[in-house]
Amino acid sequence: MAEPPAEFGLIARHFLPLAGPGALGLADDAALLDPPPGRQLVLAADAMVAGVHFLPNDPPETIGRKLLRVNLSDLAAMGAAPLGYLMTTALPRDLPPGWLEGFAAGLAEDQRRFGLSVLGGDTVSIPGPISLSLTILGSVAPGAALRRAGARPGDGLWVSGTIGDGALGLRVLQRRLPADAEGHLARRYRLPEPRLALGAALAGLARAAMDVSDGLVQDCGHLCRAAGCGAVIEAARLPLSPAAHALVMADPALLPLVLTGGDDYELLFAAPPGAGIEAAASAAGTRVTRIGEFTEGPAEVRVIDAAGAPMALPMGGWSHF
Amino acid sequence: MAEPPAEFGLIARHFLPLAGPGALGLADDAALLDPPPGRQLVLAADAMVAGVHFLPNDPPETIGRKLLRVNLSDLAAMGAAPLGYLMTTALPRDLPPGWLEGFAAGLAEDQRRFGLSVLGGDTVSIPGPISLSLTILGSVAPGAALRRAGARPGDGLWVSGTIGDGALGLRVLQRRLPADAEGHLARRYRLPEPRLALGAALAGLARAAMDVSDGLVQDCGHLCRAAGCGAVIEAARLPLSPAAHALVMADPALLPLVLTGGDDYELLFAAPPGAGIEAAASAAGTRVTRIGEFTEGPAEVRVIDAAGAPMALPMGGWSHF
Repeated sequence: MAEPPAEFGLIARHFLPLAGPGALGLADDAALLDPPPGRQLVLAADAMVAGVHFLPNDPPETIGRKLLRVNLSDLAAMGAAPLGYLMTTALPRDLPPGWLEGFAAGLAEDQRRFGLSVLGGDTVSIPGPISLSLTILGSVAPGAALRRAGARPGDGLWVSGTIGDGALGLRVLQRRLPADAEGHLARRYRLPEPRLALGAALAGLARAAMDVSDGLVQDCGHLCRAAGCGAVIEAARLPLSPAAHALVMADPALLPLVLTGGDDYELLFAAPPGAGIEAAASAAGTRVTRIGEFTEGPAEVRVIDAAGAPMALPMGGWSHF
Repeated sequence: MAEPPAEFGLIARHFLPLAGPGALGLADDAALLDPPPGRQLVLAADAMVAGVHFLPNDPPETIGRKLLRVNLSDLAAMGAAPLGYLMTTALPRDLPPGWLEGFAAGLAEDQRRFGLSVLGGDTVSIPGPISLSLTILGSVAPGAALRRAGARPGDGLWVSGTIGDGALGLRVLQRRLPADAEGHLARRYRLPEPRLALGAALAGLARAAMDVSDGLVQDCGHLCRAAGCGAVIEAARLPLSPAAHALVMADPALLPLVLTGGDDYELLFAAPPGAGIEAAASAAGTRVTRIGEFTEGPAEVRVIDAAGAPMALPMGGWSHF
């Protein structure tokens, strides 16, 4: 019979070194996993397409890592700990030399960093752009998962890290904005930081949580609709990185982009006053900022400026369709 | 704030009716699943791209069903029972009207038929062909999963159902072969039949198993390499549907396509003589055929004709690269 075709060589060379226990050497029809006893499973899936979710000329090292981190961010938003992942890659036949090596090397680095490994997947060809899909598995103590519903009027509205870096970083990479000297904004677009330690620490403290992927205002609207209440965001309280702060100072018209641009992958959450959020975040080593509060009334998000006046926003967030 | 964009409307309209318990209304960052106590999890993922795994003008009703069934076939090959699935869809903006309705309706039909539901996923846009990915979860009694390794010389080589229909059906749909009156071959290409009942019945009886996706000879080679033995396939014993039989009788040059064409999604397995395979298959309501046996020697697959003479095959199976 013929030799195994090139596809199996690709998988063996690049993906087999990423396989962990249960993956059965990526040589069976499926993976086997003993679920951790007494835990609930947490499952999420995200897709990324070249030219839509990452730039076609992004370094391949960061592309796999971004896909993994976007999914890890979903686990963080549920307060879950990672178990493993499955990934499918639809790749054009004319990938640049070294692309797969870089892609797999980036995944290997983040597997070590976040303590998980690949369980299985599929590699196929596509007559079009690179199209990736990743399903992540995590676990959480029964009933302890953070959920989107649960915010109440009077709860503080909190966010982790800094907001706007991803959206600004995309425009830096598109040469529509000047780069900062350290490359911070571009790095934040390419490598979001899943807030796993913070998510775990918020279980039992936060009343509702999600991660910011489509834009702060739009995602805050999801928390409001799930809770049946409103929210107000004080723009002056938004945590900005020094690089983002410099850009917004130079051009205040960028503030709406910070509020609605997306690609933040920070945790947005509701907590009652006195919940001990700052102590928990400090123990988790993650900066958090109270940027507003939930209010009585319809499920609307209002953004107010330093004088308390409402700000008009040109768009609600990112949509694919 | 702005209304939720169109993407959320798409998901709510078409995919929310498919969501089952644990999916949290597709409104959270992740799904929650209580793993069945005392069972191992079985996990597989497959991708499908328009123009590669299905024809761009295939009815949308069958496309989602094929993706689900290909994954269910992986569970069947492990002897596992389905629990649920996550799916990501990368869709061009110019989908024909009604495409998503049909796609979701097909999935709904097969969810009922196979007793599972969607747990989560992602819907994104792609400047290229439809690109789909599905991760399936199943469960199996601990240690009972069928594996690819384990065949021994002297074991019978068995296959379920009929072989070659998928590969012939693709050529019928491409108008490279005449259609059968009942449309059997095209239907088999579009809607493979996952052998879940047979897979479950083979646990404890078969020594090794996998599903035939890349071609009978190539996939048989996987069983041989995993076991470190050879195999011989008797071409005269191949189970052909009446429609496939008629085409091969009219043009014997099609026989290599039957042996190597792939898209069969039948179970290929090894069992020692006297294992009671026929009784188990009969109880599962699935036809099985002993098409050869495993042999001492190197991990090679030989195909012999009715006179015992070796047949030369032009290619080993389907490869993406």
